[in-house]
Amino acid sequence: MAHDFDLLTETALALADVAGVVIRPYFRAPIGSNDKADASPVTIADRMAERVMRAVLAERHPEHGILGEEFGLDNEGAGYRWTLDPIDGTRAFITGRPTFGTLIALTYDGEPLLGVIDQPISGERWLGVKGRPTLFRARATAVPGTVGTRRCEVLADADLSCTSLEMLEDAPRDVWKQLRASVKRVSWGGDCYAYGLLAAGYIDVIAECDMKTWDWAALVPVVEGAGGRMTDWNGDPLRAGGDGTVLAVGNPALLNDAVERLRG
Amino acid sequence: MAHDFDLLTETALALADVAGVVIRPYFRAPIGSNDKADASPVTIADRMAERVMRAVLAERHPEHGILGEEFGLDNEGAGYRWTLDPIDGTRAFITGRPTFGTLIALTYDGEPLLGVIDQPISGERWLGVKGRPTLFRARATAVPGTVGTRRCEVLADADLSCTSLEMLEDAPRDVWKQLRASVKRVSWGGDCYAYGLLAAGYIDVIAECDMKTWDWAALVPVVEGAGGRMTDWNGDPLRAGGDGTVLAVGNPALLNDAVERLRG
Repeated sequence: MAHDFDLLTETALALADVAGVVIRPYFRAPIGSNDKADASPVTIADRMAERVMRAVLAERHPEHGILGEEFGLDNEGAGYRWTLDPIDGTRAFITGRPTFGTLIALTYDGEPLLGVIDQPISGERWLGVKGRPTLFRARATAVPGTVGTRRCEVLADADLSCTSLEMLEDAPRDVWKQLRASVKRVSWGGDCYAYGLLAAGYIDVIAECDMKTWDWAALVPVVEGAGGRMTDWNGDPLRAGGDGTVLAVGNPALLNDAVERLRG
Repeated sequence: MAHDFDLLTETALALADVAGVVIRPYFRAPIGSNDKADASPVTIADRMAERVMRAVLAERHPEHGILGEEFGLDNEGAGYRWTLDPIDGTRAFITGRPTFGTLIALTYDGEPLLGVIDQPISGERWLGVKGRPTLFRARATAVPGTVGTRRCEVLADADLSCTSLEMLEDAPRDVWKQLRASVKRVSWGGDCYAYGLLAAGYIDVIAECDMKTWDWAALVPVVEGAGGRMTDWNGDPLRAGGDGTVLAVGNPALLNDAVERLRG
């Protein structure tokens, strides 16, 4: 099937734009440390941003499917499916760190077509489209340019990024420390932002777990369009209903060694 | 002794300005994953930023002492001493995260007078001056406004921030997990930026170790001018030559409970 990538990209960027407009006023809004979860600014921003993205899709592509973190699945049988995570990195958002992101993915019959990682505070935005090089803009007013991953040749030279210890302690296999022991350096905090930095050549390996489809779907076109690879911890393609493990490497040559460490 | 706080603040902000000008071009400069450490962009930026700050001080206050992470101690006997860390959060800088900071502190006979946390990419800047409320600006063009910590009343409601697992694994006492178990939530990554977020009311507790004087000296006036407290893990005042542990709480009422958890 021939896809109208220009039209679909226009939609994806429109989604990122409206989500950002909705989210920005809630960032660093005063949060009481004992606020109820359902009334917290992050929850309101998350739900409102998904609603406005769904409204844009209803207008532009009413026949497409939508899977959102907040409001579930619409048009289940549609070939095109948008997968939305309005605020990936809830803890970053809550603690005032501009390293959360809005994630927008489009697949056709499960095949990844397009992904956006958008940071609404800094204006940083990564766009991956199947068959095209990944684009990055550093701020809202910048012209996007292509980015590529770094050619780190061996794990011993690699920068590994991890979002949180708590996530890794819940991993299906207790093997993460083997991967850590084999790399040069670890840095912490990250969420989707780390995958953008991997696509731009500043991080070499990311291993995470407990990832839902909306957590990784947008990352795949961004990372792979920049020359990297994304799989699960077995080295198999990511799929809905998988075990939730995610492995990203900037240089595909690192994949086998990283999987070896994660196999246990 | 009466200090000319306006003049000294002007100096501190001039230091942050020149450091930022020097550092910015090196942020996200291409870094080979096997570059030699002494030729890496972060090392060059770190050394050059300290040099320009020392040059400003030589011109404005030639009689003051200077302790810098890169070039050691000058004018050891001086009452006024500037303590400089051009790039706190080397790993953040290397991996392209705008959460590193330039730290500038001034003491008189060891007494903290002034501290600056400057993030040269976002333009965020915190300024703490003894006896004055902490000021924050969100970007280079913004007018600074006062910020204050959050009144989180119990650890069970607290947001804890940690820079890295590797730092905590090297702690003098294996007690960090007790603190973690007593808080509501943990977020990772941070360095000096997390102390700025604590001063602004988004984080309640930070516990770190292996901290040198230049890592914490600038943070004390920022945190305490915002209503928080900083001590070591015993609850004692931070001092040069201490055990390297640092504890920050947004609400001083949390201090005793946090120290209790960290006592083991």
